[in-house]
Amino acid sequence: MPGAAEAATGTLDVAASLARRDAVVHDRDDSAQVPWLEDRGITLVRGRGRLDGPQRVRVGDRVLTAERAVVVATGSDATMPPIDGLAAARPWTNREATTAAEAPARLVVLGGGPVGVEMAQAWQTLGSEVTLVEAGEHVLAHEEPFAGEQVQEALRAYGVDVRTGRRAESVARDGDSVSVTLDDGVALTADELLVALGRTPRTGDIGLETVGLQPGESIETDQHLHVPDEPWLYAVGDVNGRALLTHQGKYQARIAADHICGRANASVVYGGKLSPRVVFTEPQVASVGYTLAAAQEAGVDARALDADVNDTAGASFFGNGVAGRARLVVDENRRVLVGATFTGADVADFLHAATIAIVGDVPVDRLWHAVPSFPTRSEVWLKLLESYGL
Amino acid sequence: MPGAAEAATGTLDVAASLARRDAVVHDRDDSAQVPWLEDRGITLVRGRGRLDGPQRVRVGDRVLTAERAVVVATGSDATMPPIDGLAAARPWTNREATTAAEAPARLVVLGGGPVGVEMAQAWQTLGSEVTLVEAGEHVLAHEEPFAGEQVQEALRAYGVDVRTGRRAESVARDGDSVSVTLDDGVALTADELLVALGRTPRTGDIGLETVGLQPGESIETDQHLHVPDEPWLYAVGDVNGRALLTHQGKYQARIAADHICGRANASVVYGGKLSPRVVFTEPQVASVGYTLAAAQEAGVDARALDADVNDTAGASFFGNGVAGRARLVVDENRRVLVGATFTGADVADFLHAATIAIVGDVPVDRLWHAVPSFPTRSEVWLKLLESYGL
Repeated sequence: MPGAAEAATGTLDVAASLARRDAVVHDRDDSAQVPWLEDRGITLVRGRGRLDGPQRVRVGDRVLTAERAVVVATGSDATMPPIDGLAAARPWTNREATTAAEAPARLVVLGGGPVGVEMAQAWQTLGSEVTLVEAGEHVLAHEEPFAGEQVQEALRAYGVDVRTGRRAESVARDGDSVSVTLDDGVALTADELLVALGRTPRTGDIGLETVGLQPGESIETDQHLHVPDEPWLYAVGDVNGRALLTHQGKYQARIAADHICGRANASVVYGGKLSPRVVFTEPQVASVGYTLAAAQEAGVDARALDADVNDTAGASFFGNGVAGRARLVVDENRRVLVGATFTGADVADFLHAATIAIVGDVPVDRLWHAVPSFPTRSEVWLKLLESYGL
Repeated sequence: MPGAAEAATGTLDVAASLARRDAVVHDRDDSAQVPWLEDRGITLVRGRGRLDGPQRVRVGDRVLTAERAVVVATGSDATMPPIDGLAAARPWTNREATTAAEAPARLVVLGGGPVGVEMAQAWQTLGSEVTLVEAGEHVLAHEEPFAGEQVQEALRAYGVDVRTGRRAESVARDGDSVSVTLDDGVALTADELLVALGRTPRTGDIGLETVGLQPGESIETDQHLHVPDEPWLYAVGDVNGRALLTHQGKYQARIAADHICGRANASVVYGGKLSPRVVFTEPQVASVGYTLAAAQEAGVDARALDADVNDTAGASFFGNGVAGRARLVVDENRRVLVGATFTGADVADFLHAATIAIVGDVPVDRLWHAVPSFPTRSEVWLKLLESYGL
């Protein structure tokens, strides 16, 4: 892997890493995907679309009329909270943070959610001095507490200056530098500022008002991704606010398409806040369903099973030094899994086993007979289920 | 990872790799595990045990009498087929092949099963010139044909001289070198010879005849790992011939222990030839349940779903150049999975998702709602299920 290979024995090759990134995203040119549309007889109209009354979409001078349905999939933008001076300081959003051509010498990141922690660790690794500001007690507030703690500890070990329990009160740009004043009076100075404080649906200027909907809000949908009372209107992806994850957008798109094509029972069966999700930090955080706290809050008679991912023979293939923990959340009444979290090196592909167990309602007593292979890290499942008394 | 790290940009450090291997297996000293026994009040008797009539085991001068049960777990040895001169040539078995202190300059491997291909690739990587002799059409005969083909191609790309459709007819050692004559008359000369032609249960000299059983054979067990007609005798692991895999031995041990302790319904639910299994080559081969051919042979109305593991966004994290393919085998009558095979770089932990789907009898229509995270290689599940028409 160009760039990363050098890091195995020496120092990351930053230029090669960024070149690899650009190659993977085809330099942000989507033309390679156009033949896929053409092969299926799909017309691509490039431009900014706005709804223009029922079943109508205007793109510049062109008006398109839908025979069956219009699907809104405009996504979301980084939220720009009303922090004094923030917008005027031209902060980075996720977009600049994932495409910048070089590492700023100093970077301040506002927000310790997935975007904040991923980008803080990435740019610190690529050479920036990063300061991360998080209002809560620790980063990744919606995940299991141990996940946030491990990522926070890793960020600090990488050299990131993590400031928890702090908010930015004001921001000011002065030429090439930007200063951020926190609520404890401390002033941080950096070359770039990344705002990662949530997402806003991109519905402000797409003509929602022409069909009686409220601009700027998420578009509310039923389980078919269908907008109630508008038989021709669907909304998929970030714009409906269900689950701001690419794979959930794709899943929703397929359901909407099936429903439009007449499969009346095409519905979201498992998604929303419970969707599988991965934070691509070191350690990675891969989770699905409820955390223990969220399960209890939802009224589930929940019990957590915990084990160390590294306490398996298979872990020896992954070297040492990256923390790793696994937690399953069991619904004690139904004796099925309702949540799972894995942390560690390269645990992203661990998750699907838990997703299948949860979505498939596989009883925990049955799971015990799904024996993971020796020597793999999947043997952590044995330890988890043994701790349940199976 | 010592040894392997150097290979990312340069050359494998052989000495460091072998030192790492020895460290991982604690230099074959199991004393670190003794406290685990002591903590549980388990007495360890070191020595060679032999059955000595019902419920009795003799270890040297000591005779132990079991109140409840005797569990035979003596494992298996490498099979030494009656090839002229083979035994006298002092061939390596899996044991020497996994513990040798240095790479022989030339190594001939007899057998293209899991041990043969793993060791051929390992020693070729560690500096040996390896020749692999396999009687069948391709290596890994019990796995999906594409798995054997990919591993065979990889072995050749690594420089292994793979000879398929060939058997050794005679072997002769002459001092430090050993010669192997194949059934096509070709004579191979090497420094070491590895015999990897199957396993033989280690029951030849354990006193089976004192309890009316046949020495040298696998010990037949029922689904409780219990030996029929001998209420006090159990056999777990390779010695019963069910599934020659460490994790299946552990699974069986737990079932036997539960049954001995009075849980009358403790039984093998999923195991034997269908057990999950991983071949640790590059590409890895991870499989569970039936291959397509084995399912058809078993009378299952089977359909195969195929996809390329590398045709996912997540594959970009694993570099390029390692072949990878996924196959699911669906039982068309029950609409559940009955088999799965994954090949590729680091797919060992992929397998557990399929194992849970199979053991949990999760309907394929339900699996479609278990949405893998973007961008992970688990998204190959989407492609597999889409190809089924879901």
